[in-house]
Amino acid sequence: MKIPNLIGYQTSSEGTNTYQTINPITDQLHPALFVEATQEEVDRSATLANTAYRIFSRTSPMERARFLSAIVTELELNKLLLIATYCGESVLNEQRAEVEFARTIFQLTSFADLLFQENWEIKHIDFPEPNRTPTPKPQLTKYKLGIGPVVVFGASNFPFAYSTVGGDTAAALAAGCPVIVKSHPFHAHTSYQVAKLVVKVAEELGLPEGVFSHVNAIGYEVGKQLVQHPFVQGVGFTGSIPGGLALQQLAQQREVPIPVFAEMGSLNPVVILPSALSSNSEDIANRLALSITKDSGQFCTKPGALFLLACTETDRFLETFKPIFEQQASYSMVHPTIACTYTQRAKQVIDQSNVHLFAQGTTTTSCNLGIPQLSLTDGQTFDTNKLLQEEVFGPHALLVICKDQHELEQILENISGQLTFSIFHNEENIQTSNLFYIAQEKAGRVILNGVPTGVEVSPAMQHGGPFPSSSDSRFTAVGTDSIERFLRGVTVQK
Amino acid sequence: MKIPNLIGYQTSSEGTNTYQTINPITDQLHPALFVEATQEEVDRSATLANTAYRIFSRTSPMERARFLSAIVTELELNKLLLIATYCGESVLNEQRAEVEFARTIFQLTSFADLLFQENWEIKHIDFPEPNRTPTPKPQLTKYKLGIGPVVVFGASNFPFAYSTVGGDTAAALAAGCPVIVKSHPFHAHTSYQVAKLVVKVAEELGLPEGVFSHVNAIGYEVGKQLVQHPFVQGVGFTGSIPGGLALQQLAQQREVPIPVFAEMGSLNPVVILPSALSSNSEDIANRLALSITKDSGQFCTKPGALFLLACTETDRFLETFKPIFEQQASYSMVHPTIACTYTQRAKQVIDQSNVHLFAQGTTTTSCNLGIPQLSLTDGQTFDTNKLLQEEVFGPHALLVICKDQHELEQILENISGQLTFSIFHNEENIQTSNLFYIAQEKAGRVILNGVPTGVEVSPAMQHGGPFPSSSDSRFTAVGTDSIERFLRGVTVQK
Repeated sequence: MKIPNLIGYQTSSEGTNTYQTINPITDQLHPALFVEATQEEVDRSATLANTAYRIFSRTSPMERARFLSAIVTELELNKLLLIATYCGESVLNEQRAEVEFARTIFQLTSFADLLFQENWEIKHIDFPEPNRTPTPKPQLTKYKLGIGPVVVFGASNFPFAYSTVGGDTAAALAAGCPVIVKSHPFHAHTSYQVAKLVVKVAEELGLPEGVFSHVNAIGYEVGKQLVQHPFVQGVGFTGSIPGGLALQQLAQQREVPIPVFAEMGSLNPVVILPSALSSNSEDIANRLALSITKDSGQFCTKPGALFLLACTETDRFLETFKPIFEQQASYSMVHPTIACTYTQRAKQVIDQSNVHLFAQGTTTTSCNLGIPQLSLTDGQTFDTNKLLQEEVFGPHALLVICKDQHELEQILENISGQLTFSIFHNEENIQTSNLFYIAQEKAGRVILNGVPTGVEVSPAMQHGGPFPSSSDSRFTAVGTDSIERFLRGVTVQK
Repeated sequence: MKIPNLIGYQTSSEGTNTYQTINPITDQLHPALFVEATQEEVDRSATLANTAYRIFSRTSPMERARFLSAIVTELELNKLLLIATYCGESVLNEQRAEVEFARTIFQLTSFADLLFQENWEIKHIDFPEPNRTPTPKPQLTKYKLGIGPVVVFGASNFPFAYSTVGGDTAAALAAGCPVIVKSHPFHAHTSYQVAKLVVKVAEELGLPEGVFSHVNAIGYEVGKQLVQHPFVQGVGFTGSIPGGLALQQLAQQREVPIPVFAEMGSLNPVVILPSALSSNSEDIANRLALSITKDSGQFCTKPGALFLLACTETDRFLETFKPIFEQQASYSMVHPTIACTYTQRAKQVIDQSNVHLFAQGTTTTSCNLGIPQLSLTDGQTFDTNKLLQEEVFGPHALLVICKDQHELEQILENISGQLTFSIFHNEENIQTSNLFYIAQEKAGRVILNGVPTGVEVSPAMQHGGPFPSSSDSRFTAVGTDSIERFLRGVTVQK
């Protein structure tokens, strides 16, 4: 069986490159062949999107809200099939699939609700003052307009919520931007099933052909062609730092540069101050162990480095933490290449001088396991070895024991931009402390007495921090504010 | 006399490069020598700004409002000196100086008013739901934080309003970002006078040293060093397309790329439909002639191309327009290089095949005149010759006579991004016409029955359009919304 691209309202499989998905638990290939999009198909999807843009960007916010709501209905109707496809392909379990499905629905609904707000599209109106001196004041109406066709790259770790009709797509469609999804090859079936539903809904609602297309790709070429296509006006990406930087570079080299919102890697530092450890040691240990290892740590917000001060409270905490961490189970990761990279990177960290393995989770006989690992080092080693400051995608974290608060703060001053920064503490004035100011300068979200995983979908969420955790810290990738990535203001003066 | 840099609260003139300003009416050099900043001085200004950032970004919006208000007071107290300096140096007349001074005050006051709004810094609060299942909902507070030290490049054509303490500086200071101004060498005295006042106010208010610095520069090196400096986190620029693109490239090549908001060139197309010409011909001609020639056309919003349809209404309009345009006077431009470039560029346009001079203003014996010129061509010539689609900075516009509405729309579909797009019309449904949709896709501001010059300062203003008219069409350079360029969201979760 060959699985085509969805270019506008047509299926299309003109190419000769094909690829298959794999079940990472068993390493078995799925028999279906995905036909990679050709340059001609990419061009067709962009041309259709460009034509659709003029019609779709003129639709009322209400019409777009109805589009999003109809997608929700269609997803709900097909939930069983979608969840089964998701679990078979991604090996993330059914509970996770349910959570992610619910999140996807919630995101679509949130954007629909936003669009239903009265006069959502109006940013500001200035009424005319014809008698103003020396010159009359004209009427100015500033409204929101979608920037144009947007390319969304499916994320490896979120087959539903940050892929085909996940946060980026929902935001772009809500903004009035046609979307071309580059399907993620690790969960190509899930992506294709979801895409078919979106296409069906769009066609039924009489929306212009090209408002949504879905292209298959295993290599980099298709993504490159999309980002370079003159009709494409914006890009949403969730993934690695090298991947995001490559897209940004392509986008900047265009004759007309376009914005790329890339949500990239993050170390997500967690500081555990001695004051937090007097009574809550076990609770903190349990929460951190789960946050590091849940779904094999395949989250951009997984805590990657835990900072502690050398003191008796820390010693006791580590004694508590070790056995808890050692009980954490290993799971197959979402793809053999992810598992392989994880294993190599965790080993690379542990092989650095002055770093050693502190605790390891349990293993099973499944393929492509991500084995939970905690390694340990000292502040100075962390500070001077840049390799230790890079994300290890998977269930690994590095314990960094600092001599004192001064060293701790100096080290944290030197780290790069982060999505999140957590502080476990029991101090009344933490929000006016120097540590807090460092946290807010380094990260988009500062968590007090909590773990960074489990990102709330809310207009109060900032998911996107200083470079390189995201490409532009002025925008968020989660919550309804994320629509700002794909909107510009237009003022009509009369 | 040597005029130093203002690095934090110190004057500094360590360099050996010096330059002088010139009076463009007489071509006489001013005797004072400006000492160009050295790399060490640039580094000092950035280091001080970085240190100041942590303190200044923590100040309350109220404290920053007070800073802006105190600058207003100081400017008002020194108004006579400032206006005299401005007029002597820029040759823009006193009336213009008054308008620009008032605009500068209004901008500062608008940002102060914005900061005085209750809870301005809070973007959104989500209250906790401790009993939510399956997981409790934390409290999320999303607030606004300045991105860090910002470099502002003074603009050649706005010595007050888009230079030292103009729109970009006011927005950045309001956001809590320390500012380093690269003084524009064409009006270095005005810039220095204004800067001294800002430094005085900052010091009197006990603000951290480095919250504002002012560096002299005649070449590109100082600007380059500033944009490349690791402590600099954002850039505001108003000027030419090559200048803006060069800065953007430097900013992208950094280890940590930073946002550059460059408000660059624009052709500002004006469409004059036959329906508009039945009764208002003379009025339209007068307004356009003034808009093209006022202050020697040295505005980024000066109309550079006027599109008309070949018909009897157009013929009659041109008969009216010609003598009106020929009455427009020539003035000295703000600098000999500006006048020289203008004269060359206008000649280059008129020398193209199928283009000819249609009307010319009057001349005087002053130096560095920008002689008003209207040239004329046909739609096809304009469409096929890219050189005609580029801005001519100065009092020149190109009349483009199109065969019919179809050709007009096709031509306009092909132009690049614009700051403004004007339509003179007398049609009831203009805002649902194809022409209007083209206008909104091409520009940040669409003007109906008006000229593009005279940009209102208002939250309803969008000054910034699709590339290359500005570097990021999602932001505006005018109005209080322009603060968004220098703010990011931070969420505290607890």
